Amino acid sequence: MSTDDQSIGERLEELYGDMADVHMQPLWTQTADLMPRTPKSAAVPWLWRWSTMRAIAERAGELVAVGRGGERRAIALANPGLSGKPYVSNTLWGAVQYLGPHESAPNHRHSPSAIRFVLEGDGVWTTVNGDACDMHPGDLVLTPSWSWHDHNNNTDQPMIWFDGLDLPAVIALDAVFFDPEPPSDIQQLEGAHNKSTRVYGGRGLLPLDDVVTTPGQSPLWVYPWADTDAALTNLLAERGGPMVSMRFVDPTTGRSAMQTIGCEMHRIVPGGPAIPVRRTGSAIYVVYRGTGHSIIDGQRFDWAPGDMFVVPSWAAAEHQANEPSDLFAVTDRPVLEALGLYQEERLTAPQEVTSRFAG
Amino acid sequence: MSTDDQSIGERLEELYGDMADVHMQPLWTQTADLMPRTPKSAAVPWLWRWSTMRAIAERAGELVAVGRGGERRAIALANPGLSGKPYVSNTLWGAVQYLGPHESAPNHRHSPSAIRFVLEGDGVWTTVNGDACDMHPGDLVLTPSWSWHDHNNNTDQPMIWFDGLDLPAVIALDAVFFDPEPPSDIQQLEGAHNKSTRVYGGRGLLPLDDVVTTPGQSPLWVYPWADTDAALTNLLAERGGPMVSMRFVDPTTGRSAMQTIGCEMHRIVPGGPAIPVRRTGSAIYVVYRGTGHSIIDGQRFDWAPGDMFVVPSWAAAEHQANEPSDLFAVTDRPVLEALGLYQEERLTAPQEVTSRFAG
Amino acid sequence: MSTDDQSIGERLEELYGDMADVHMQPLWTQTADLMPRTPKSAAVPWLWRWSTMRAIAERAGELVAVGRGGERRAIALANPGLSGKPYVSNTLWGAVQYLGPHESAPNHRHSPSAIRFVLEGDGVWTTVNGDACDMHPGDLVLTPSWSWHDHNNNTDQPMIWFDGLDLPAVIALDAVFFDPEPPSDIQQLEGAHNKSTRVYGGRGLLPLDDVVTTPGQSPLWVYPWADTDAALTNLLAERGGPMVSMRFVDPTTGRSAMQTIGCEMHRIVPGGPAIPVRRTGSAIYVVYRGTGHSIIDGQRFDWAPGDMFVVPSWAAAEHQANEPSDLFAVTDRPVLEALGLYQEERLTAPQEVTSRFAG
Amino acid sequence: MSTDDQSIGERLEELYGDMADVHMQPLWTQTADLMPRTPKSAAVPWLWRWSTMRAIAERAGELVAVGRGGERRAIALANPGLSGKPYVSNTLWGAVQYLGPHESAPNHRHSPSAIRFVLEGDGVWTTVNGDACDMHPGDLVLTPSWSWHDHNNNTDQPMIWFDGLDLPAVIALDAVFFDPEPPSDIQQLEGAHNKSTRVYGGRGLLPLDDVVTTPGQSPLWVYPWADTDAALTNLLAERGGPMVSMRFVDPTTGRSAMQTIGCEMHRIVPGGPAIPVRRTGSAIYVVYRGTGHSIIDGQRFDWAPGDMFVVPSWAAAEHQANEPSDLFAVTDRPVLEALGLYQEERLTAPQEVTSRFAG
Repeated sequence: MSTDDQSIGERLEELYGDMADVHMQPLWTQTADLMPRTPKSAAVPWLWRWSTMRAIAERAGELVAVGRGGERRAIALANPGLSGKPYVSNTLWGAVQYLGPHESAPNHRHSPSAIRFVLEGDGVWTTVNGDACDMHPGDLVLTPSWSWHDHNNNTDQPMIWFDGLDLPAVIALDAVFFDPEPPSDIQQLEGAHNKSTRVYGGRGLLPLDDVVTTPGQSPLWVYPWADTDAALTNLLAERGGPMVSMRFVDPTTGRSAMQTIGCEMHRIVPGGPAIPVRRTGSAIYVVYRGTGHSIIDGQRFDWAPGDMFVVPSWAAAEHQANEPSDLFAVTDRPVLEALGLYQEERLTAPQEVTSRFAG
Repeated sequence: MSTDDQSIGERLEELYGDMADVHMQPLWTQTADLMPRTPKSAAVPWLWRWSTMRAIAERAGELVAVGRGGERRAIALANPGLSGKPYVSNTLWGAVQYLGPHESAPNHRHSPSAIRFVLEGDGVWTTVNGDACDMHPGDLVLTPSWSWHDHNNNTDQPMIWFDGLDLPAVIALDAVFFDPEPPSDIQQLEGAHNKSTRVYGGRGLLPLDDVVTTPGQSPLWVYPWADTDAALTNLLAERGGPMVSMRFVDPTTGRSAMQTIGCEMHRIVPGGPAIPVRRTGSAIYVVYRGTGHSIIDGQRFDWAPGDMFVVPSWAAAEHQANEPSDLFAVTDRPVLEALGLYQEERLTAPQEVTSRFAG
Repeated sequence: MSTDDQSIGERLEELYGDMADVHMQPLWTQTADLMPRTPKSAAVPWLWRWSTMRAIAERAGELVAVGRGGERRAIALANPGLSGKPYVSNTLWGAVQYLGPHESAPNHRHSPSAIRFVLEGDGVWTTVNGDACDMHPGDLVLTPSWSWHDHNNNTDQPMIWFDGLDLPAVIALDAVFFDPEPPSDIQQLEGAHNKSTRVYGGRGLLPLDDVVTTPGQSPLWVYPWADTDAALTNLLAERGGPMVSMRFVDPTTGRSAMQTIGCEMHRIVPGGPAIPVRRTGSAIYVVYRGTGHSIIDGQRFDWAPGDMFVVPSWAAAEHQANEPSDLFAVTDRPVLEALGLYQEERLTAPQEVTSRFAG
Repeated sequence: MSTDDQSIGERLEELYGDMADVHMQPLWTQTADLMPRTPKSAAVPWLWRWSTMRAIAERAGELVAVGRGGERRAIALANPGLSGKPYVSNTLWGAVQYLGPHESAPNHRHSPSAIRFVLEGDGVWTTVNGDACDMHPGDLVLTPSWSWHDHNNNTDQPMIWFDGLDLPAVIALDAVFFDPEPPSDIQQLEGAHNKSTRVYGGRGLLPLDDVVTTPGQSPLWVYPWADTDAALTNLLAERGGPMVSMRFVDPTTGRSAMQTIGCEMHRIVPGGPAIPVRRTGSAIYVVYRGTGHSIIDGQRFDWAPGDMFVVPSWAAAEHQANEPSDLFAVTDRPVLEALGLYQEERLTAPQEVTSRFAG
């Protein structure tokens, strides 16, 4: 209890103690931490090497069965800045998924949304709500929120792809639902493969009378590499280098193919200085083709096919290629845009390299 | 002036006369005419034969120069029900446009929107705001409201296409602006042909950072036949016959490629009974490929390639093909949808044919 | 038939005749008429005097019963430029409606949308889909497209209001439906009067879980004069004179209260030069309070309470008040905006008066 | 290094160690934790007593100056389940802010959005971008993302209000910007107080030509209690009890007044069983008037004026009043809705009380 002859300091200490007792906290002692001048992400820039990841995935393929419970043989990238959480950033989860010959990953659904970007192997399909979506290298396959999905490898070779999920964001929003009790472990196929492509894959054309789809969810679930490659070639021809960037969209709205995950493809050619950009929100880059390097907040990361790296929120990032290179990326940009929080800033000069990644 | 011993009839007559003097009219004597139970269009179902139109267009090609003032060698379809107005329906203007070898139609712009659907010839381009849009048979080319456009035939053959405009609707809205004073009669080209395709023609992909475009206007201006054909083939494979229908869309929104003109393509294969549909709003059909017939409010119209016919508002229409057939159509459906006035009704049985078109 | 020695003129005449035979018309002879440089409305500026209209309405009240068939004792304003059509402009229908003591106008519904703006009388209500909407002077009452509505005067005084409909536009679009067969001639009331106000009349507040309403249609059907007056007073206090303008909106979207009719209220105070504005689209102004004059394309119209006047499309219009004045207006602006056709131009100087209205 | 005679278990352990070394983690060992069947929020239901909070706030008023650096004398509610973080839930920050007589809290701006709900005192204003917004008990005042704001108490009494921010969500998205360097510590006022109300506070009326505002941000910044009270009275009259709920909206769009914070007001009257509802997303309730209790996941919380309590995501919550009661609430529902993650479930029967809050 406070008395008249207590010092202010003592009375304050007592006040803070009393606050703590009733689960209250003063704002004024922590304003600067809660409200930095610009975003201070705990996530750090980092790169995961394909050779390392592939070897680990292969060992997991030998030792771990795929099945109900564990659900997927996915190995998550854990940002060293995030205290052991299996997240690439505060909002994005990324992983290498390995499916051995003649294996299947069982059917389930969840409120987090997921994308697959194929790195190795051919002849696998992901069945999404009854539609078998074929997967070839460079293809992007969507499994929207709450859609049933299982993965099937009917070939004699393993298949490896990148998994990108909005899981950390959905966890932060306390909105994860998971349903592991499908009608069957592997979905029955409804008709021939790639139905979503046949109906919604037209270029500038949609069915006159659209089947009603879920608002915010693309009814097109496969984006084949051939189309992506052609679009990049055209845009590069029109705009010139050193870098052109496209986003994968829902053809029925022109908005992001996923409501909570931005999917992008960047083609970089040698030449010309890169322009560093800061953006609110984070991104995972997956090198699909080519070699080069990126400078992220002054740290240089050299990359080669299959490598993956993260650009945290508001980190300055610039990319340069040694040869024509294609980088796939997932971001949380649609989330930030939907909430009025997206910002970007183009720096006026390339960054100085202050360190090199030695991961 | 009315007096006490006038009959009610006399007094009413006097009242109506006095109303007319001050530019007023009673509603109650004309309610039924103004408000019919269902739409009663003055436009009648009609068909124009390709052989007739082509011959007329060729004669015009010999006799009439293309140039400033007349602006275009376009021959409009005039619905016999519309009292001599050069309109296909109350909202749609349709024409055959003929451009001879090495002719150009000069640059202008107007608030009405226009589409071109190519019927004969190859190697022509329409320049839209500096972008040369190549035209091949079956291609759809847009010239959005207030965009500069000129047509250029650098070949030794004539070119014929269908012109579809929203002109009657824009006239009804007293909103026509026309600007015949371009910087030059033929636009300077900005870079290589088909820029809009290179930037916005990706399948499920758009530039990451879109150039700002005019709201409601597609930045994609060419929809090549090869893409249309592929999309119809896919949709037919998925949904089966006898008819599948697609709409041309703005890839940045998924909405109608033109804000005031619906552009559709219908593929019809033999077999199965047609289902008659009534819709608010009118449509001009252009037979691109195949033969068959349509029944419109009980009247049978047999059609062959190049023929054009009109389905007036709320007329029951059904289509049957003798062989795989493709029908392009322009409609006013986006207008009716934007205003909350679109309705459709599927009839339960094919119509009885009560007459045959002998136009 | 053409022969070699025919002149070009003869051959052209023959061609035009052959075109007419097959219901075709050359564009090039009529380009300028179809596409004027700026909108050339057939509608002319005009003013209808309240004293004249009221007297005519009263006589109609004596001579014409209200009932099924004629449906409404509404006397339409017929623009002298529109060849005898009962329209104020190409898109708007306006009328004075007179409902005598203890009369009812029977229940019906139609696809055209209507608004009522009350000029004289009190204690009447319009029942809209079962909700009795009370009507006092200065109130705006909506009857959205296809809503059941009947009018009821349970008082000993006549009631007069202005009716504004989109009827000419809906006729031009061949989309009029009319249903004169309600369950009963006068609707049963569902609960107390003014339900729409209780649910949707909050200021900045809406029910947490909205009842699903028809897209594009306001679920709020009454806009009382007291609210309108207060809003104008506030806006004038903030922005100053000589004129402030507000639009009536759907509180669930902030868009026009009617999808096809713009409803506006203008308060004008003496002082300061008026700024002439041209707009695509037409407007009917109804003087609710005050006196002043408007100059429309150089013609001066003096106005007093109850007078109504029309500003055709693209006519320059400016307004000046002798005393604080309130002008209600209906327009077709939402139609033009929805179709990308709305334009406006502010002139740099007041117009010279070239004539005076002597209607 | 693995050898042939290692057991699977040993090899797995080695694999997991190697993964950790390269910052990777197996998904299959943590699937259930990452993806629970329904949301498992770390936040717990909790209630903070007004008497406690008020006493603490008063003591802070004596001991702590308001000024640059600490910025605000706000005392945050810290959910006991959130490991010492000063958050009410994963997405919401709530606090009691105390401003003594003749004190001002200095001008700053930040990307997190904030609302104020006034509990005690009168005559204070918050200046938002130059507009002084007066604050009375029951008023809601908005300070949208990145708007300058300072608080000013020119009276002889203290003022206490509830602060609600989206801060935890914006931190989770790594998107906090803070700008403590305004042109002056206290903003110059632009004209009379409450400008936003004069322009955007009309009921069903907006300025004809809107000033361009920031997309997603309401240009109306004050929602006076008198309007809220009237709206609740009307809705309760129409819908009946025991509970009616309204949301505060942006009058230009009908959407949530804040893009990232749902603001709600609930009126509860005695009688009738409460219906428990689960919702994704959390809510802070602030008792403005009345007494009653809420049952949250089986735990009973009795409440009185000024008390605040939290309903975590997917907790079943029901409310009952002893007398007519008004509860203000802030939620993250607009965030969940914008991302396609909003779900709700109405339980079929009231919950059994399994414990009582003894906080």
